[in-house]
Amino acid sequence: MPTQLFDRIVLGDRLALAKAITLVESQNIEHQQEANKLVSEALKLNKAALRIGITGAPGVGKSTFINNFGSWLVNEKQRRVCVLAIDPSSQKNHGSILGDKTRMETLSMLEDVFIRPSPTSGTLGGVARKTRETILLCEAAGYDTILIETVGVGQSEYLADSLVDCLLLLLLPNAGDDLQAIKRGIMELADLIVLTKSDVTEPAIYNQAISDVANALNFIPNKFEGWTPKVSNYSMHNKEDVAEIWKGLEKFIGHQKSKGHFETKRKAQKIEWLNEAIKGKLESSFFEDADHKNALKNALSELENGAKSLEDIAAKLIDDWRK
Amino acid sequence: MPTQLFDRIVLGDRLALAKAITLVESQNIEHQQEANKLVSEALKLNKAALRIGITGAPGVGKSTFINNFGSWLVNEKQRRVCVLAIDPSSQKNHGSILGDKTRMETLSMLEDVFIRPSPTSGTLGGVARKTRETILLCEAAGYDTILIETVGVGQSEYLADSLVDCLLLLLLPNAGDDLQAIKRGIMELADLIVLTKSDVTEPAIYNQAISDVANALNFIPNKFEGWTPKVSNYSMHNKEDVAEIWKGLEKFIGHQKSKGHFETKRKAQKIEWLNEAIKGKLESSFFEDADHKNALKNALSELENGAKSLEDIAAKLIDDWRK
Repeated sequence: MPTQLFDRIVLGDRLALAKAITLVESQNIEHQQEANKLVSEALKLNKAALRIGITGAPGVGKSTFINNFGSWLVNEKQRRVCVLAIDPSSQKNHGSILGDKTRMETLSMLEDVFIRPSPTSGTLGGVARKTRETILLCEAAGYDTILIETVGVGQSEYLADSLVDCLLLLLLPNAGDDLQAIKRGIMELADLIVLTKSDVTEPAIYNQAISDVANALNFIPNKFEGWTPKVSNYSMHNKEDVAEIWKGLEKFIGHQKSKGHFETKRKAQKIEWLNEAIKGKLESSFFEDADHKNALKNALSELENGAKSLEDIAAKLIDDWRK
Repeated sequence: MPTQLFDRIVLGDRLALAKAITLVESQNIEHQQEANKLVSEALKLNKAALRIGITGAPGVGKSTFINNFGSWLVNEKQRRVCVLAIDPSSQKNHGSILGDKTRMETLSMLEDVFIRPSPTSGTLGGVARKTRETILLCEAAGYDTILIETVGVGQSEYLADSLVDCLLLLLLPNAGDDLQAIKRGIMELADLIVLTKSDVTEPAIYNQAISDVANALNFIPNKFEGWTPKVSNYSMHNKEDVAEIWKGLEKFIGHQKSKGHFETKRKAQKIEWLNEAIKGKLESSFFEDADHKNALKNALSELENGAKSLEDIAAKLIDDWRK
């Protein structure tokens, strides 16, 4: 069954792709096994797309940007574009509330585009792993550009950066926004920076913001040797802006490839993926081990009466389990 | 050495307490061993303080609130107050940038108060564990009220809630703020809600906000059976407001104790603490195992050529390690 499904994915059947991603996201053991097979097949194909992360604070205009940027890539560059979203912060309400598709109207009407709303949430490691696997499936389906949108709160930017080749940070043209990004260490993660809303901002304020950000970058350590993020301006009404941003992105990727950073980062991401899987499996093997339920209960009372340190209790439980 | 240090902690020596917390936060193995002993001693004392989490979006006025609330508790209720901060989102820049103490001037001048700025950052699990252990040490030092401030982005509210007896959510009196809290599932986590800035808000707008929030709560499932969060108003200039909030908090704790929720939550938190320690130890035992470095390398090439699924590779690595 999975092989048939995989063949349909490779032929570009969007329904098959959507179904496969649902398998990846499922908690059901059988679904997971099917998903694992599909992902292995996808790995063999080795069709690496360009992976771009797009982040920024709520209200900065991520969806509009992705709508315009994605449509331009399809229309002007004949690229096949896939949009994924990660939102590890919404732990209780599963999935995103606003339908991503409704906010990306132009893009979602195009033929060569696949949009997948936020996956069901979970631990950071879980979201990372499922997104990695979804990327591989989208690549197998022939998409050559993966845009990953993150909500821009908490640790989602770190997560996004661990999944992509290039992280694009959108900032509002006011001092508060760049200060927040500096404070939270997000500025250091950015490979490219875009100041949005140039069409609705006083030119003097906008230009000041551009030079403030460029200036701030001088005080931040370079993420990659020899690369300082370009600060681009952007109005949702100006196609030239998108063309310029794309040029900057191509320049960045060229730099990364020529210095070997591109391959190094991709390899590190694969190792991270393997490590996440190992961590998940270690935990599930340990905690699902039925013989262990009693030992955990005893450990808890040992912990409560202070007879042994937490560390010693944990070490002994693991030693016993390994035997 | 640790025992001497522990005796000083119990006698209320703030320097000794600060030193012990530094040991808890240290990555150094010897420091960790000393910290483990101190924490075991603290567990034996079993001096549980009231643990209160305080969360809210940036700009809502958390520090001013804690400054006033904490000072009131010391002056009017003769409580000994400890303020801790958790900020798992600042992954790159270790520690908080703004010194918490400078934003809590009145409070930090009081005798019966201990303020500890954000701990060095790390994984969510790591921050949780270190904070749990810090709480135990503060309790051993005789503090009977622990206030835990979180920056209110990402998953920090979930983390805070897993550490405290009561989570107090501060909201700004505008529709945007409560909508965000609902969207992100934070409203569902709140045990008490405080609308800040009543002194600088138009009364009509403020009262509307109060009733909007109270109304929104009707559509949210109760976190604890039989308890709907009270919505309190608050101005930083009105001591009566603090007294009212404290009354609401006492009522909540009374409800929790009478229904058995208080003990159940505390117990679940201890189990969570044990589980975090087990997870940490599982990972460190596996990844630090020198024999395993080669196996991981081989696994990576198996993964790359798609010969085996990620899941099978991880399972085999763990089986080999357990033998």
